[in-house]
Amino acid sequence: MSVTAAAGFRATGVRAGLRAHGDRPDLALVVNDGPSTTAAGVFTRNQVKAAPVLWSQQVLRERSLRAVVLNSGGANACTGPDGFGDTHRTAEKVAEVLGCGAIEVAVCSTGLIGERLPIDSLLAGVDEAATGLGDDEAAGTSAATAVLTTDTVDKQAARTRDGWTVGGFAKGAGMMAPSLATMLVVVTTDAALDAEVADRALRAATSVTFDRLDIDGSTSTNDTVILLASGSSGVTPDEGTFTGELREVCAELARGLQADAEGVTKRIVVTVTGASTDAEALVGARAVARDSLVKTALFGSDPNWGRIAAAIGASDARVEPETLSVTVNGVLLCAAAAAVGDRSKADLTGRDVEVEVDLGLGTGTATVLTTDLSHAYVEENSAYST
Amino acid sequence: MSVTAAAGFRATGVRAGLRAHGDRPDLALVVNDGPSTTAAGVFTRNQVKAAPVLWSQQVLRERSLRAVVLNSGGANACTGPDGFGDTHRTAEKVAEVLGCGAIEVAVCSTGLIGERLPIDSLLAGVDEAATGLGDDEAAGTSAATAVLTTDTVDKQAARTRDGWTVGGFAKGAGMMAPSLATMLVVVTTDAALDAEVADRALRAATSVTFDRLDIDGSTSTNDTVILLASGSSGVTPDEGTFTGELREVCAELARGLQADAEGVTKRIVVTVTGASTDAEALVGARAVARDSLVKTALFGSDPNWGRIAAAIGASDARVEPETLSVTVNGVLLCAAAAAVGDRSKADLTGRDVEVEVDLGLGTGTATVLTTDLSHAYVEENSAYST
Repeated sequence: MSVTAAAGFRATGVRAGLRAHGDRPDLALVVNDGPSTTAAGVFTRNQVKAAPVLWSQQVLRERSLRAVVLNSGGANACTGPDGFGDTHRTAEKVAEVLGCGAIEVAVCSTGLIGERLPIDSLLAGVDEAATGLGDDEAAGTSAATAVLTTDTVDKQAARTRDGWTVGGFAKGAGMMAPSLATMLVVVTTDAALDAEVADRALRAATSVTFDRLDIDGSTSTNDTVILLASGSSGVTPDEGTFTGELREVCAELARGLQADAEGVTKRIVVTVTGASTDAEALVGARAVARDSLVKTALFGSDPNWGRIAAAIGASDARVEPETLSVTVNGVLLCAAAAAVGDRSKADLTGRDVEVEVDLGLGTGTATVLTTDLSHAYVEENSAYST
Repeated sequence: MSVTAAAGFRATGVRAGLRAHGDRPDLALVVNDGPSTTAAGVFTRNQVKAAPVLWSQQVLRERSLRAVVLNSGGANACTGPDGFGDTHRTAEKVAEVLGCGAIEVAVCSTGLIGERLPIDSLLAGVDEAATGLGDDEAAGTSAATAVLTTDTVDKQAARTRDGWTVGGFAKGAGMMAPSLATMLVVVTTDAALDAEVADRALRAATSVTFDRLDIDGSTSTNDTVILLASGSSGVTPDEGTFTGELREVCAELARGLQADAEGVTKRIVVTVTGASTDAEALVGARAVARDSLVKTALFGSDPNWGRIAAAIGASDARVEPETLSVTVNGVLLCAAAAAVGDRSKADLTGRDVEVEVDLGLGTGTATVLTTDLSHAYVEENSAYST
């Protein structure tokens, strides 16, 4: 149930020694053995893009990839032309060991911004990875594990239908927001897809999954989601069916990212209904999901609906207090922007919190996943680069 | 050096018993004895406005106020028509004890959203306040103290020039963002001002002071800043001079709010220069000031400039990595979006942190005040309503 679930793919993870504390694997390689090498990618919308993002966006113009190489231990972001050179050399090295062109190799990096990667260690790691590639589940898990940073578990998913499979892994635990939620994701399929379909399906699937995950409002320089299609099943599914299955895999990976986010003690689902438009519902849901006061209240298991009303009221979504209601874990706490019953009836002692805001204005709706703001989040993020 | 510094004003603070733990003063009254009763106000831009905001906006259409009554212990927000009735009764009670009309009384409230105020206690408190009004500094301080919630100190300021004085107090410690930074502020002056000048001066002064304070990105339902002008000095200052002094008083109060914000261990000044426009500089500065990862890094005294570059890169301000530089506490850490020298040279052990981002694109500039994101912030806000 990973990148090796679909036929035509090999993967591995190795320890290249890129981390300050080099006792964990930190380099992953995913190879598409074809017969097709169709690929698509979506990337961070941050204007400050890491070298591997600039590189991978460029090579994906060809819509064809033999491999993706990923490293933890350094984002290779804000590293100037030399950093871009490091990414280029990494792709060339992978191309050399696989016997393909560098333009067929995407690169993903994650870790601290602003530091050069130890390129010699990285290139040696590629050599080692090339000899360790496997097509079984253990091989996929080894790749999924090598890209983790502050993540505590690997995130993998796969689905099979009508003779073809979609599977993938994701990493990401912080700096997560709209533009794909700081993360690296590789999804593979043995369905036979043309490049246009692969691109449309990936954009459609990510827009309602990874794009709806907002842990801390911060958007990384390195966000990347790549889809590789080997065509090895010989089956060309209907586009809608494929997109649906891909969306399910992405949704499962996104829920895995949410559950493993930095310092998380609550998994929070914010749903806005009754907005003027879907777009306004999304704006409102994001505002609630990002609000530090809402997130700290939920960390404290406090159904403080007033902060929820204040957060959406301060957003760019149209809000009329007269028709605003807030429901937490199924208990209506606020109607017409005023208290209804006893707030303590909303039981927040569990890990899952469902926040529903009905704006009562129209039919627009949207859901965003987030987490609480805990002591552990502060702890983890105040001691990251030092 | 408070609301009683200017001639023509009396004030007091009393304990009306509005708080769950009723051992602190919680009701303040500020009275303008004239001869003039010119007034101006600015209010939260939140679409969910507290009853006292709706009331005070209404009465300020007349641009004349005899008094402002303020309470802590409850925001009277999201309380429906009954809550609005409570505000109305409060203004009527103040009008009765002062012998004026309710339309000459502004009301401000702060505290938990969604709970009705204990109106009988509040009205009894107004009676008590009316008998305790004074025009000395102790009286002003007593009013400044009664409005505090999670604040740890009163925030007051005053300036005298050419025979006239401007002074005021502010309260606010959390839920602070763009639209005035959750807070209540009363500023008085004995300058003789016409209503147009008072309004323009207040808008100009708040737009570059309170509006540039962003503690946690959250905008309250209750933000209010009121200016009362008694004309008692008999001096009508030049509009520019008056606006300048008013701005200085507001700036000092805003710095006081920043220093006393919830859980603060660092006072952070974010300045963006070289933006295409001032408006884009402000968008960029706010994005950096609000970024949880920047704020936790600074809490950890970590000059993690990569997070600063990522935060502004993800904002709506135009950013070109080639011309982006970041300076922290006077040490250039990043130029052309790449590391310069040793980040450890930026000493962040003190309480004050200056972050400067030069976008290198134009002449737009803006400064925003914020604080770090600490354990204490999480602690305070996870246990507020319970």
